[in-house]
Amino acid sequence: MIAARPTPADDLLDMAARALAAAGMPEEDARRVADVLVLADLFGIHTHGVARIPEYLDRVRVGGIDITAKVTVERVTPALARVDAANGVGPLAGSHALDAARCGANEVGIGAAFVRGSNHFGPVMPYLFRAAERGFAAIIASNATTTIAPWGGRQARLGNNPLGIGMPAPSGDHVLLDVAMSVAARAKIRAAAAAGNSMPETWATDTDGRPTRDPAAALNGFLLPFGGHKGYGLSVMVDLFAGVLSGAGYLTHISSWSEDPGRAQDLGHVFILVDVAKLMPQHVMADRMADFAGIVHGTSPADPGAPVRLPGELELTHYRRQLRDGITIDDDVLARLGWLAGVRR
Amino acid sequence: MIAARPTPADDLLDMAARALAAAGMPEEDARRVADVLVLADLFGIHTHGVARIPEYLDRVRVGGIDITAKVTVERVTPALARVDAANGVGPLAGSHALDAARCGANEVGIGAAFVRGSNHFGPVMPYLFRAAERGFAAIIASNATTTIAPWGGRQARLGNNPLGIGMPAPSGDHVLLDVAMSVAARAKIRAAAAAGNSMPETWATDTDGRPTRDPAAALNGFLLPFGGHKGYGLSVMVDLFAGVLSGAGYLTHISSWSEDPGRAQDLGHVFILVDVAKLMPQHVMADRMADFAGIVHGTSPADPGAPVRLPGELELTHYRRQLRDGITIDDDVLARLGWLAGVRR
Repeated sequence: MIAARPTPADDLLDMAARALAAAGMPEEDARRVADVLVLADLFGIHTHGVARIPEYLDRVRVGGIDITAKVTVERVTPALARVDAANGVGPLAGSHALDAARCGANEVGIGAAFVRGSNHFGPVMPYLFRAAERGFAAIIASNATTTIAPWGGRQARLGNNPLGIGMPAPSGDHVLLDVAMSVAARAKIRAAAAAGNSMPETWATDTDGRPTRDPAAALNGFLLPFGGHKGYGLSVMVDLFAGVLSGAGYLTHISSWSEDPGRAQDLGHVFILVDVAKLMPQHVMADRMADFAGIVHGTSPADPGAPVRLPGELELTHYRRQLRDGITIDDDVLARLGWLAGVRR
Repeated sequence: MIAARPTPADDLLDMAARALAAAGMPEEDARRVADVLVLADLFGIHTHGVARIPEYLDRVRVGGIDITAKVTVERVTPALARVDAANGVGPLAGSHALDAARCGANEVGIGAAFVRGSNHFGPVMPYLFRAAERGFAAIIASNATTTIAPWGGRQARLGNNPLGIGMPAPSGDHVLLDVAMSVAARAKIRAAAAAGNSMPETWATDTDGRPTRDPAAALNGFLLPFGGHKGYGLSVMVDLFAGVLSGAGYLTHISSWSEDPGRAQDLGHVFILVDVAKLMPQHVMADRMADFAGIVHGTSPADPGAPVRLPGELELTHYRRQLRDGITIDDDVLARLGWLAGVRR
């Protein structure tokens, strides 16, 4: 449906937090989760923003997620933390893990948090951004439900395992990369199927592992990793860091959110943060980041109308505009959220 | 030329170390460098093995690399080290940085070393392997001479920036990923040009940024990143971690090895190591890694004759075979190395 007028970020945050609290989440936890999801919307990543709240609550209702879970953080060394999400809402675990890794980095220069027992933690960009705002470089990743076959295989064994890498710029022009391991997201294939369109055959295969242009066949098959064996390799390494090292599930041990919503997924995440201030003074970092951006932006574009951009630049532009003018949220999403929050619109 | 009979690894190590020492490198430093390069040959990565020694020494001769450089390691926090390679031979800096990051990880669970003033440090796989042998997971990367254009640009601004990620298996079946950021290496394009072959148009562009099948045009143009904007993004993030954070050169500040061999390159590297023993007992890690490998290997292959492999599996197979039977080295490379070492063959 056509979007209504933009919603101020604070209003959306309140509404999202109230929707979660109304379902039984402690208020402070609800605000942590809402912060991650509203940031996603601010960046223009609406597929991973507050629109996810009804989905999360559907899983809460069938016992798949524990909305009252207490996330516990165990500091095993000054720099390492193990986080047990206790099958709570993913962004709650992510938010605590970010704090735990930052704590280690603050103390000894670099810190890591490994999360087990978690669920879908939203997109990586909000965590990268919160880390960058405080001057931390970050590497953050999660495993996920299996949708990708190993290179040369024809059964889904790996998730789309999002990987995020961020570098803070004192000016606020942080460089933030958030990539999933497939060429295209499943949501794009579902959209093609719904619209009756064909799709590029680099996106996915049918059940026999043959590349296909038919979205319906692709939805029964599996996604292809970006860059072939290189994307496959990255997906494996993310699962080893986020799943195996954290003590969470990995590969086919992760149950499907959509097919088995009542079962705990046991996803794993990894957060590694570096305190840049320990490596150089802020004005030096500011100069280096400005110089870096200047060189990249100064590249002759292949298309004169499309200047070269750094990773995350588009999302930061959306962020600034929507923080000022309000967030453009789909009317249906807003209505459903309002209903969940007890605010009839 | 046809290779002679295989060379025992210890003999190749001696010969490589003597070749470096004969050019003026302190003996202990020469053995560190030889260890990295011979490991590359053991893994079957001959393009990055001892064949590089004559190239390194050519640059030493014209003043581009200082073979007597003292690498200095400054521990800035318990977990962070800054390494100044002082324009020494790359693998010497890499070897010291690996030790420095391991030291931090040993003490507080995770450690990082940032290297500046360096040169080509060889492939990433040997460092990942040495880390894994001692039970450390690793993320290691370097920037490089510019050969890739930013996504949507038509001037080379980024290097092929190798990224390695490794996970130790107590059984010895470590999982080791070593990827460069281009679809294909420049060496492959040079080989196609020399053989008079055309190449896939996904590999590179001509000088105007148009994809080309002509290797000669590609050598004047630039390499395409794997996975399009995703590979571009990864290349940017590697340069930010390895170049900007380390205090080294980055992007176009890095001079070309081939075009300006007498000038210091000021490459940067990053080494991040995690001590797995701090996260779980060894037998638990052994079980999890064996289970992980079992699931991946159990995937139905698309081609029944080509079972699914994990990253680094092929290289570890080469390693074990060549460690036992000797390394197959090109006769010309061996002769040149012997001559440099003062051992006429």
